[in-house]
Amino acid sequence: MRQLNLFRNRWPTLTFQLHPDLKRDGILIGKLTLCQVLLINDSAYPWFVLVPQRDNVRDTIDLTSEDYESLWSESRVLSKAIMKIFAGEKLNVAALGNITPQFHLHHVVRYSTDAAWPGPIWGKQPLTPYDSIEVENIRRMLAEANVPNWSPS
Amino acid sequence: MRQLNLFRNRWPTLTFQLHPDLKRDGILIGKLTLCQVLLINDSAYPWFVLVPQRDNVRDTIDLTSEDYESLWSESRVLSKAIMKIFAGEKLNVAALGNITPQFHLHHVVRYSTDAAWPGPIWGKQPLTPYDSIEVENIRRMLAEANVPNWSPS
Repeated sequence: MRQLNLFRNRWPTLTFQLHPDLKRDGILIGKLTLCQVLLINDSAYPWFVLVPQRDNVRDTIDLTSEDYESLWSESRVLSKAIMKIFAGEKLNVAALGNITPQFHLHHVVRYSTDAAWPGPIWGKQPLTPYDSIEVENIRRMLAEANVPNWSPS
Repeated sequence: MRQLNLFRNRWPTLTFQLHPDLKRDGILIGKLTLCQVLLINDSAYPWFVLVPQRDNVRDTIDLTSEDYESLWSESRVLSKAIMKIFAGEKLNVAALGNITPQFHLHHVVRYSTDAAWPGPIWGKQPLTPYDSIEVENIRRMLAEANVPNWSPS
């Protein structure tokens, strides 16, 4: 058991498993150094989630100091890319996670014409899934956005 | 005008003015190096807001790279302090700001027994103001929490 923990601490990304809630609602479109980048399957908003590939993290402050810095650095490059790609008016960045216990950081591009404006989007309406061609377009736009350390998935 | 802008860029905290919405809902309880720390006057949740003392910032990515790092560093020390003081079960950290255009970062200590659980708190119910003795208690607890660079207000 001690050996397994040692293994987990040294290569956490090898043992990391995405929580079923995030698998259900998200589509893996890329990876950064620390985080997986999911597109939430809701065409109502350009909505992306960063998930640090670490076990047993529920709040931002559960991350080590080094991972915490990486998370916010990755959030910044993702935020800039999606605000540009989607010509956003406003960006909502939020760590909520009251229901899904695996830490995930929401990034939602907002418009004064969107379905939930000016309120938060969570719980407003059911997810409206994308067509597969729309997902491929978003995947391509992100892959071409010159996001540092981006690995397409 | 050029001279005024130069002045503002060099000493931004001297010209900084809190937005009226934040003045109305928040009580200044302390300052960190970059941010003012407001207690939102709602006894339903331990709810704090960091406001970077910078003009013309609406989204996280509007901050300079240096200020961005300071914001998240200050968010980390505040988060740790309030989760400890209030024995929180979960922490919600969110940059929304669709209504109030001055950048502000919410920190809400959550409990599975609170009024909005497990949903987000925003727009759930009107603010329920504190008694002044409760505010003074919170002010004292924060002042005694050994938060790095804390200046009580």
